[in-house]
Amino acid sequence: MRKSIAVDMDQVLANFIDKAVAASNAHFGEQLSAYEIFRGEHSEEKRQQFWQIINEPDFFRDLALLDEDAYDVLKELNETYDIYIATAAMDVPGSFLAKYDWLREHFPFLNPQYFIFCGNKKVVNADYLIDDTVQQLRNFTGQGILFDQPSNQGDTEFPRVHGWKGVRDYFANVEAHVNVK
Amino acid sequence: MRKSIAVDMDQVLANFIDKAVAASNAHFGEQLSAYEIFRGEHSEEKRQQFWQIINEPDFFRDLALLDEDAYDVLKELNETYDIYIATAAMDVPGSFLAKYDWLREHFPFLNPQYFIFCGNKKVVNADYLIDDTVQQLRNFTGQGILFDQPSNQGDTEFPRVHGWKGVRDYFANVEAHVNVK
Repeated sequence: MRKSIAVDMDQVLANFIDKAVAASNAHFGEQLSAYEIFRGEHSEEKRQQFWQIINEPDFFRDLALLDEDAYDVLKELNETYDIYIATAAMDVPGSFLAKYDWLREHFPFLNPQYFIFCGNKKVVNADYLIDDTVQQLRNFTGQGILFDQPSNQGDTEFPRVHGWKGVRDYFANVEAHVNVK
Repeated sequence: MRKSIAVDMDQVLANFIDKAVAASNAHFGEQLSAYEIFRGEHSEEKRQQFWQIINEPDFFRDLALLDEDAYDVLKELNETYDIYIATAAMDVPGSFLAKYDWLREHFPFLNPQYFIFCGNKKVVNADYLIDDTVQQLRNFTGQGILFDQPSNQGDTEFPRVHGWKGVRDYFANVEAHVNVK
């Protein structure tokens, strides 16, 4: 039976952070870094305004690809594995359709019947999850793979991959290991 | 550890069929039954028009509750189980936000972090799935429970429950069985 790989969207496929930081700084007339915005420089009121901005229906529609290699590597993996997209969308319910359309545009070979818009990724039934959020890998019940990002430096709880070339290497090694057995 | 129950939306919580049939008949000037509409009386062109109608952003927003008992029974089960909502939304991506808002309105005690908008329910990681579609229960890897509906008469592959009082009885029996062990 084919194994399944669930793939996170934001900061794994899509570059959410760069647009979010630019939008926040433009809105508030600031020059804060992602770290400062997401780790608490903003007041509660500003945080709420920020979430309203990113919950706008089209905010997620034109995000840039995080890594140009994602297309080729996912297409290769799609030959051997069932590829699921698992995105924590419930905090930004206004984003659902934009996220769906973005996936269809950038990865037209993926099967939308395997898209999962969720919150806590413990609900995802897959063999692997590629995610940049350590807490989501902890929630997940299969094998977690940490996608290297500035926000998760130093964590050693999960195997770490650097970019989509790193994802390709990880699964090549998994298969080599399986063939040795 | 708490066990989890995933619950389908359409024809389990929400009365999708009645509104869909009325909308179809109004649009085409017909008097067809649900069976005739969903099992092939329509041409391919009409079927596509029909899907466009139900994919309108607000179509799912004002569906009636299928069974008034759902609220009380889900609230009770929510004390003992993690309740997930698993809805096959990927065929009607325009419906995402309406479905989310509908759930928040009718079942405000449910945790949106456990909402799952998906396609094929093999991706859902839960102990139980309550669904009216036999094929989805087959896709699912946990214990399926068939929610009795006109469309699934005669099927004997899964335990069958009648309405939300039937769901309550089913889990009361599960617990009685566990306590006997």
